[in-house]
Amino acid sequence: MITSTGNTQIRNLAALKKKAKERDRQDVFIVEGPKMFREAPRERIEQVYVSQSFLKDGKNRAMLEGGVFTEVSDAVFEGISDTRTPQGILCVVKQFHYSPEDLMPAGGPKEKVPLLLLLESIQDPGNLGTMIRTAEGAGVTGILLCGETADIYNPKVIRATMGSIYRMPFFYTEDTARETARWKRQGIRIYAAHLDGKRSYDAEDLTGPCAFMIGNEGNGLSSRCAALADTWIRIPMGGQVESLNAAVAASVLLFEASRQRRTARPGGGT
Amino acid sequence: MITSTGNTQIRNLAALKKKAKERDRQDVFIVEGPKMFREAPRERIEQVYVSQSFLKDGKNRAMLEGGVFTEVSDAVFEGISDTRTPQGILCVVKQFHYSPEDLMPAGGPKEKVPLLLLLESIQDPGNLGTMIRTAEGAGVTGILLCGETADIYNPKVIRATMGSIYRMPFFYTEDTARETARWKRQGIRIYAAHLDGKRSYDAEDLTGPCAFMIGNEGNGLSSRCAALADTWIRIPMGGQVESLNAAVAASVLLFEASRQRRTARPGGGT
Repeated sequence: MITSTGNTQIRNLAALKKKAKERDRQDVFIVEGPKMFREAPRERIEQVYVSQSFLKDGKNRAMLEGGVFTEVSDAVFEGISDTRTPQGILCVVKQFHYSPEDLMPAGGPKEKVPLLLLLESIQDPGNLGTMIRTAEGAGVTGILLCGETADIYNPKVIRATMGSIYRMPFFYTEDTARETARWKRQGIRIYAAHLDGKRSYDAEDLTGPCAFMIGNEGNGLSSRCAALADTWIRIPMGGQVESLNAAVAASVLLFEASRQRRTARPGGGT
Repeated sequence: MITSTGNTQIRNLAALKKKAKERDRQDVFIVEGPKMFREAPRERIEQVYVSQSFLKDGKNRAMLEGGVFTEVSDAVFEGISDTRTPQGILCVVKQFHYSPEDLMPAGGPKEKVPLLLLLESIQDPGNLGTMIRTAEGAGVTGILLCGETADIYNPKVIRATMGSIYRMPFFYTEDTARETARWKRQGIRIYAAHLDGKRSYDAEDLTGPCAFMIGNEGNGLSSRCAALADTWIRIPMGGQVESLNAAVAASVLLFEASRQRRTARPGGGT
């Protein structure tokens, strides 16, 4: 059992928690809690750390059966955990490496129509993680990230994804114009969520292949990025509200697409 | 100019920032930033504090014209600010006191149909604030809060409301059953967002008077609270997502109601 925070492995975990560079260099990220452990693809789990109290529970020991893990004292575990109430299990997981093609549906065209999300400079880790979780729920096939976006492997992002990080293909691009041009050639319609949008989001037919662009929390989309869209849309708002939270705007748009696809599909519906 | 954090006023601000009890005892709350200052109802502003650098900007001085304010040194301002990048202006504002009747639309029945939100034990201040902001945007007429809900005057809630705190009527109740019974007598249909809901949210007619119940982030609605609803509804989800973030679920439901009301209303639409 590891009982010292000076231990090399423990110091490495601290570095992985804090530094995006270190995560990239080692090609891993950290996940916490039983849910994140259970949902992790087995072949991607590189290391598992559990606290002394965690191991005292028979159910927890059963969950670990057959796997290799390292026990650490409760005090040390508290130090490596990123949450106020540590759940006693933490894993080092291999990073994902997707290509732009991976953002498209894997099945045949009958199975799924592309539904893409393009996020520009989303800086709040909680917002980014929530959008990844929401995207999976709404049937998004992949996420393109550009601009000064938070590191997707930041522990706060990972936590907010609630496991969707394992299943949602994503790709960071430095050349948004190239990627959107490729989308357009594939017949994907690109909508920018924009306060100056003339058309209401729900007046659009979202049952075909489409993508939504969502911009930075404070400033919205850059004009360069917004110019790459086919159509600017807005979410009609009441009261004196000027804009919605970025994750909220994404949710409203994505679930409208999901609703239209569900109700339009023969044999679909509720 | 105040230059010491030991100053009585400054110490009081620190207490107001941290303690819900102190806010309630003094019947005030704290708001930060130029937007929150500009949107605050004038008659509710009790004190205004500005930093030395803030005052150096002519535009800022113009904004303050005719009002009483207290200048504090930049170092002191940093101490009283709740944000990492203080915006140089902070106000003490009088709390709101609404009655359950205030949650209903103020105008005639043609103007607005009741659209209510019932939040049970929402504990994340950011989530609560975001829901208040989203609610105003979606045309919600009032919010009922119950259970172990975060203090609405917590600085993190206030910040996330982006000013909606000034305009959204809300009421904390210890007797949810009494309030929902009152709603039912008024012909308001109550929907619980519930993972066991049989009906999809978008299959319901949300153009009439209605209310949505949203439960705690981790546990959803308590069975006691969910039992008070007329109908349990669910948001159909893809992938392996078990549930949505509470603020996201609220957004999807509220903007579906908003969409239906907009498209159903003669002369409405986009």
